[in-house]
Amino acid sequence: MRTLDEHRSLIEEHLGRLALAGELGGLTDAMRYALQGGGKRIRPALCLATGEAAGAEPEVLLPAAVAIELVHTFSLVHDDLPALDDDDVRRGRPSTHVEYGEAIAVLAGDALLAQALDLALSYGQPEVARELARGTLGMIGGQYLDVTDGRVELVQLHALKTGRLFTAAVGSALWVAGVPEQDQRTWRAFAADFGLLFQIVDDLLDGDGVVNERGVDAAWAFAEETEEQARANLAEIPADTVRLDELVSGLSMRARAS
Amino acid sequence: MRTLDEHRSLIEEHLGRLALAGELGGLTDAMRYALQGGGKRIRPALCLATGEAAGAEPEVLLPAAVAIELVHTFSLVHDDLPALDDDDVRRGRPSTHVEYGEAIAVLAGDALLAQALDLALSYGQPEVARELARGTLGMIGGQYLDVTDGRVELVQLHALKTGRLFTAAVGSALWVAGVPEQDQRTWRAFAADFGLLFQIVDDLLDGDGVVNERGVDAAWAFAEETEEQARANLAEIPADTVRLDELVSGLSMRARAS
Repeated sequence: MRTLDEHRSLIEEHLGRLALAGELGGLTDAMRYALQGGGKRIRPALCLATGEAAGAEPEVLLPAAVAIELVHTFSLVHDDLPALDDDDVRRGRPSTHVEYGEAIAVLAGDALLAQALDLALSYGQPEVARELARGTLGMIGGQYLDVTDGRVELVQLHALKTGRLFTAAVGSALWVAGVPEQDQRTWRAFAADFGLLFQIVDDLLDGDGVVNERGVDAAWAFAEETEEQARANLAEIPADTVRLDELVSGLSMRARAS
Repeated sequence: MRTLDEHRSLIEEHLGRLALAGELGGLTDAMRYALQGGGKRIRPALCLATGEAAGAEPEVLLPAAVAIELVHTFSLVHDDLPALDDDDVRRGRPSTHVEYGEAIAVLAGDALLAQALDLALSYGQPEVARELARGTLGMIGGQYLDVTDGRVELVQLHALKTGRLFTAAVGSALWVAGVPEQDQRTWRAFAADFGLLFQIVDDLLDGDGVVNERGVDAAWAFAEETEEQARANLAEIPADTVRLDELVSGLSMRARAS
């Protein structure tokens, strides 16, 4: 079994030499710029760790893992647009629309989504791409709630905007590994916990979201409770889930280091 | 075999009661607004006419046909945005971003694309969705050329921006009808002719594009030559292609009525 660092290297390598549709021409510059922003690659890492625990080889999982990162990147490019969050900077660099202009950023986001689905369609079974398409629809539903500022529980908003793509990372790995649907329940419960923990940690680091809603102490307690729940679900999975456990530890260490 | 009018009724009916992902919430209002703009539905009509000629029932073809229209609609919503073509009016109504705001229009376009692929994934064979994803990538490549105003032949730009989705309409119908890849060549040649004829007719009606590039007389000659080529390809297809022939006639009549 590979280490998390080995997984991360595989992901960066695969992203770096990813073939994009030739007809996209110069648009691929903007797509690669957005992809190479140096994110934590937590979603594809979750996909590899899940799939390897379920018995698949990382090489076989990589197209699904990278497809998830493409969808995540598409969402960031569109979220940063002036009409949405209007963020000029993303991970210390000009956001895609600042670097390439708004028109190119809109098209680059569109192309990243279409390319992600084409990549997920490289598998024989349609379930991998279906998992990704449905996760994307849930995520967009979350972005809609965020933009319209509707009266909705923060946890519900996060479950869509962030959680659905974590679930897709786990779910697509399970399909690639050939885990039948009736055996996926606990894995998917873990994915939901993991996505929630990711978001609470993010709010703790930024001092917003759940921290604003419940106060710092309650937010910490919520994180610990969610972490326990995630580990309890992992313990129920009949597989070697040590890398998934390490990913959980990585999240909670991030919060504690702050 | 149904008439073209019967095909159009089936398409409108299916679009009207199309289930959209529940998590999209109020965003579906903007998606339905964009979908119900009263377009000519020429892409889904081409899909039904192709598939029925190849032996499939219209009811079985409808998800693929409607998925193509969703992708077309997504492209219109994003193309109309201020950063792209900045069109305030679409088919006599306020464009989606004028009616719902830019943020919602960006998200509605994204959701239409994801929903289209999910719909295409309702088929057991992944080829239908792959055809749609690749057609979409080609179309976006054409939009990129259009936006960047690169030095490129107009015919090449149209082959991507318009043509690729016509090819996807024909190609997805062939997959649904179970036509093996080695027997698809002439159908696809017809699709390319049809897309080109559609675009020349559009330019003749608007007095731009090919008309600007070659003059009115040459544009008319080009349309006639393309129409002949389309009919010659149809004649080579071992199937009853009468509805496809009628669709070609419909295009050329549109031009002559102007």
